Amino acid sequence: MCRWIAYSGSPILLSRVLFQPKYSLIDQSLHSRLGVETTNGDGFGIGWYTQERSTPAVLREIDPAWNNRNLREVAHHVRSGLFFAHIRASTGTAVQQTNCHPFRYGRWMWMHNGAIAGFRELRRDLTLAVDPALYPDIEGSTDSELMFFLALTFGLPEDPPGAVARMAGLVERTGHAHDIAHPLQMTVAVTDGRSVWAFRYSTVAASRSLYYSTEVGDLRALHPDAALLRELSDDSRLIVSEPLGDLPGAWNEVPESSYSVVQPGGDAMRPFRPDLAHASRS
Amino acid sequence: MCRWIAYSGSPILLSRVLFQPKYSLIDQSLHSRLGVETTNGDGFGIGWYTQERSTPAVLREIDPAWNNRNLREVAHHVRSGLFFAHIRASTGTAVQQTNCHPFRYGRWMWMHNGAIAGFRELRRDLTLAVDPALYPDIEGSTDSELMFFLALTFGLPEDPPGAVARMAGLVERTGHAHDIAHPLQMTVAVTDGRSVWAFRYSTVAASRSLYYSTEVGDLRALHPDAALLRELSDDSRLIVSEPLGDLPGAWNEVPESSYSVVQPGGDAMRPFRPDLAHASRS
Amino acid sequence: MCRWIAYSGSPILLSRVLFQPKYSLIDQSLHSRLGVETTNGDGFGIGWYTQERSTPAVLREIDPAWNNRNLREVAHHVRSGLFFAHIRASTGTAVQQTNCHPFRYGRWMWMHNGAIAGFRELRRDLTLAVDPALYPDIEGSTDSELMFFLALTFGLPEDPPGAVARMAGLVERTGHAHDIAHPLQMTVAVTDGRSVWAFRYSTVAASRSLYYSTEVGDLRALHPDAALLRELSDDSRLIVSEPLGDLPGAWNEVPESSYSVVQPGGDAMRPFRPDLAHASRS
Amino acid sequence: MCRWIAYSGSPILLSRVLFQPKYSLIDQSLHSRLGVETTNGDGFGIGWYTQERSTPAVLREIDPAWNNRNLREVAHHVRSGLFFAHIRASTGTAVQQTNCHPFRYGRWMWMHNGAIAGFRELRRDLTLAVDPALYPDIEGSTDSELMFFLALTFGLPEDPPGAVARMAGLVERTGHAHDIAHPLQMTVAVTDGRSVWAFRYSTVAASRSLYYSTEVGDLRALHPDAALLRELSDDSRLIVSEPLGDLPGAWNEVPESSYSVVQPGGDAMRPFRPDLAHASRS
Repeated sequence: MCRWIAYSGSPILLSRVLFQPKYSLIDQSLHSRLGVETTNGDGFGIGWYTQERSTPAVLREIDPAWNNRNLREVAHHVRSGLFFAHIRASTGTAVQQTNCHPFRYGRWMWMHNGAIAGFRELRRDLTLAVDPALYPDIEGSTDSELMFFLALTFGLPEDPPGAVARMAGLVERTGHAHDIAHPLQMTVAVTDGRSVWAFRYSTVAASRSLYYSTEVGDLRALHPDAALLRELSDDSRLIVSEPLGDLPGAWNEVPESSYSVVQPGGDAMRPFRPDLAHASRS
Repeated sequence: MCRWIAYSGSPILLSRVLFQPKYSLIDQSLHSRLGVETTNGDGFGIGWYTQERSTPAVLREIDPAWNNRNLREVAHHVRSGLFFAHIRASTGTAVQQTNCHPFRYGRWMWMHNGAIAGFRELRRDLTLAVDPALYPDIEGSTDSELMFFLALTFGLPEDPPGAVARMAGLVERTGHAHDIAHPLQMTVAVTDGRSVWAFRYSTVAASRSLYYSTEVGDLRALHPDAALLRELSDDSRLIVSEPLGDLPGAWNEVPESSYSVVQPGGDAMRPFRPDLAHASRS
Repeated sequence: MCRWIAYSGSPILLSRVLFQPKYSLIDQSLHSRLGVETTNGDGFGIGWYTQERSTPAVLREIDPAWNNRNLREVAHHVRSGLFFAHIRASTGTAVQQTNCHPFRYGRWMWMHNGAIAGFRELRRDLTLAVDPALYPDIEGSTDSELMFFLALTFGLPEDPPGAVARMAGLVERTGHAHDIAHPLQMTVAVTDGRSVWAFRYSTVAASRSLYYSTEVGDLRALHPDAALLRELSDDSRLIVSEPLGDLPGAWNEVPESSYSVVQPGGDAMRPFRPDLAHASRS
Repeated sequence: MCRWIAYSGSPILLSRVLFQPKYSLIDQSLHSRLGVETTNGDGFGIGWYTQERSTPAVLREIDPAWNNRNLREVAHHVRSGLFFAHIRASTGTAVQQTNCHPFRYGRWMWMHNGAIAGFRELRRDLTLAVDPALYPDIEGSTDSELMFFLALTFGLPEDPPGAVARMAGLVERTGHAHDIAHPLQMTVAVTDGRSVWAFRYSTVAASRSLYYSTEVGDLRALHPDAALLRELSDDSRLIVSEPLGDLPGAWNEVPESSYSVVQPGGDAMRPFRPDLAHASRS
C-alpha cells in the first residue's frame, strides 16, 4: 500500500526525518519492512506549513522518492514545524500527481495508507455523498482522496474525530450494502496546521501498522547522547507507518481502533469506532 | 484549446501525417494558426488500430509533443490504416495522462477540442447521468472524457450520431438549467476501428475549425506530382482541426452544426443538432 | 532560446517575481515578447539561497513552467533574498533535468541564454579543456553547462569576470579554428550567493536582450503607489532577459559587451570582452 | 544493477515475453530474484525492429516499468522478430531518458547490466578514446553508453566480438592504471538487426547471471502442451538476465567469460576475453 510520516514540533529541516534516519521514509520506498508491499515507488508527496501563510505547500511527483532530486533539494533546504510525507504503492489507480498524497483543502492536509475494499463498485455511491459544493475539487481517482472529501463533507473542520468516524461509518455501511465483508482498512493522518490526528482502524480489526514516538523528554533521559533529541523541543512528535530506527524505547504502537491527537496543550490517545448511525446527506 | 487529426485509409506510417506535412500536428503544438491558443503543450496522445486486435493501442504523455522522442519513434515505425492524434492545451484541469486524448473504451476511441462552459458547476450533474456500470472507468477529470462516457451511456455503439446528439442535448439542458448561455463548444472525433464520425457544433453557432481532405482521386488529378497522394488509396481521408498544408483544393471546411462520417462504402456529411428531448437516465 | 531572471535584495516570496508581474517569467514561458522563440516549454529551474546552508537549493523539471504545480507551490511558500529562475527552449539537446538551468557547483549557480554555434563540432575540444578534477561532475549535454565548467576551470571563484572572459575567449578561438564565424552568443548570470554577475556578449555584437531594474529608491519616488516597491530594500535588484512589466522608468538595457555586478557595497556596470590570450590548460 | 532480455525468432507480440511469463521482465522490475538489487525502477527501454526500416524503434521512459501504461500499450500491439528490453537500477547516474537502455546507433542497439568500477575516475580517459566523429552523439552520462561508443570506435560493425574485446581490454587497462583491482563487470547484448551477440564477463570472474533458452524443437518435445512453444519457429531464442519461468529444461547458463551469438545459419557459444594488446586510438 503506502508508507507515511507526520511530524509536529520544533522547526527542523525535512531531511532530518526524511533522509537521515536508518529506516528513513526514503529507505522505506525501496525496502519497507512492515508494509504490505516492500516497494513504494508509485509517486510521493510532502506537505509543510511555513510562517508565510496558513495553507501548506504541497510537492508531489509521480516517480519514486529514492532517486528524486527535487525532493532531496527541498528536504535539505526547507525547515518546518509541521509536515507530512507519503510514499505511494498504487493499488490499481493511475500513477498521477492528483493521486499522490498528501491531499490539501484550504488549510487542511490528509494522507492515507490502506484501501476501501471493492472500491470500483463503491466509488459512485460514495462520491454521491460528497457535498456538491466540494465535489468540483476532487481531482484524482483514489479512495484516499474521496475519504478526505467525505470527511470534509461530514464536518472535518469542526470535529475531526467525529467527521472521520462518520466517513468510516459511511464506507462500512456502503460496503456491507454491496456484500463486502471488510470494507475499510486505514491509517489516516489529518491536520489543520496546528494539531495532527492519526487514526488506525480496519473493519477486520487487523489494521496496517502505526507508531508514535516517545515523549522527547523521556527519550532524552534514556539516550543523552542522541544529537537529534537535543535539537527537539519537548512537545515534538512523530507518527509513522513504521519505526525510523532501532533506538530502544523510542517507538510505541498506536493500538487497534484508536486515534492519537498531537496538539498544543497535551497529546492524547483515544478509542476510535466508525459512526454507523450518521445519516449521510446523499 | 486543442488540435487533433483523424486518419482513415491506406495503412501508412504515422509520421507521414504527424511529422512530415508543412503545418503538421507537431508544428501546430508550437505554432497553431487557427487554434484559440497558439501553443498546445499540455500533453498529447495517439491511438492506432492494428491487425493484432480490435482494441486500439493508445500512447499518451504529459509533456509537449514537439520534443517528445517516444512519439517520434513510434510514429516513424508504426503503420496503421486508422489512427487518431491529439495535442492538448489544458483549460484548467490537471496535466496528467488520464486527461490526455484519445480516450478509449473497448474498441472505441474519442477525442475532443472545445469545452463545456461552467464545467466546474455542471460536472456533478453530468457525471450522475453516466451509466453506473460505466462510471468506475472514468479515470480523469476533463469535460472531454465525461462527454465520451455520456455518449457511451446514450448508445454510442448502436447509434453514434444519435448518442452524440443526446450527449450534446444533455449538456445544453444542464447548462441552461444553471443559467449558462452557451454551454457547449466542440469538435469531436469518434471511431470504432472501422468508421470515423467527426462532429462540429457549438451552442453559439461559432464552432472551432474543422476540415476534411478532398477525395484522393480528385486531388491526384490536380497534383499528379504529389508523392503522398500516389501512396494513398482512393478512400483515404483526413479530418483535421486545421489544414496540414497549402495544397490548393486539398481542404474543405466541415460546415457549422454538421457531422462527417468516413466509412467503408462511402463517406457522408449530415446536419447535426443536439437531441434536447431525450430523457436522460439520471 | 531561453529566458531567465536573477533577483538579489530583500527576502521575498519567489512568486512575487515569478508569477505576479504582468510579463512574469511564467507568462514568458508561453508568450515571450523579446525571445528568439515565443515558447519556452522545454523544462525550467529555480535556485535559491536560504539561511540554512551556503549551497543553494535547485529545483528543476522537464515539463513547461506554465502548468507545473510544484513550481507554483514552492514559489508561493519560499522566501529568499537571492534567487535565479530559468525557462528553457532547447536548441536540440535532450529535454532532461540535467540540461535544465540553473547549474550548481558548490555554492555557485550559473544560467545561460544563447548558444555556442557549431556546438556538435566544438563540444569535444571544449570538454577536453575542463579541469579533469571537475570533469566527472558534468551530467548533461548542453553548451550552457559546459561553459560553466570551463569558467570554473579558469578560476571562477577567484575572479568571476576574468574566468568568464577566458571561457568566452576559448569558445571563440576554438570556434574560429573550426571556421565558425560567430561562435558565441550569450547572456549569462552567475552567483556565489552574495554577488550576482550578469554578462551580455556575442561575437557578432548583436546579443540577446538583457535588462536591469532601476534603483528602488528612484523608482519609489517615481511610483509612490507601487506596492511591491514599498516592500523592497533600496539595494534590491532584478536582472532579466526581458522586462516584467510596463512601469515607466523601471527597466534599463545592459549595453552590448558589458557585464553588471550586483553586490554588497554598490553595483557596477563594466565592459566585457573575451580573453583571447589566455592559454587554456588543454 | 539492471535486468534485460533479448529475443530473436518468429515475430511475436512483445507482451508474450515482457508481460505474460511468470517471472516476466515486468515482474523483475519489482521482484528480481537474481539481481544485485531486487527493485529495478529507475527507468526502462525497449527497442524493436520492423519491416519498415533497418533502424530499430526505441522507446525509453524514466519511471518504473511495472505501472507504465505506454509500455503495456506498445507491448500488446507491436509484433517483432528481434527486440531488446531493459529495466534499470541506477548506480548513481541521473535517471533520465538518455541514460536508459537500449542505446542505438544507426542500425545497432546495445544494452548492459553491470558497472565499470571507479567510473567517476575513469570516465574522462575512456571518453577520450571514443572516435571524435562519434563523440557528439554521446547524450547521457552512463558507463553503459560509453562502453557502446568505445565498441563502435573499435570496429563493432566489422567484428562485434573483437570490438567488445577491445573495449573490455581498454576498460581493464585504464582501470588498472588507476589501481582499480576489478574494473569491469558486464553482461552485454548487442545487435545489428540480424544477429544478437551476448557477452558475460567480469574481471573478478564472478559475472552477473545470464541465461539462454533451450532450442525450441527440444523444448517442444519436452513440453508438447506449452502454447507459446507451438507459436515459435525452431530458430527462436531468448537471452535473459534471469529465467522467465520454471519450465524444466528451458534455461541454460551462459558460462563465465563467454559470449553467445544468435544468428541465421546457426547459433554458437564461444569463449570471451578482453583484448589487452589493442593500442587504443587515444
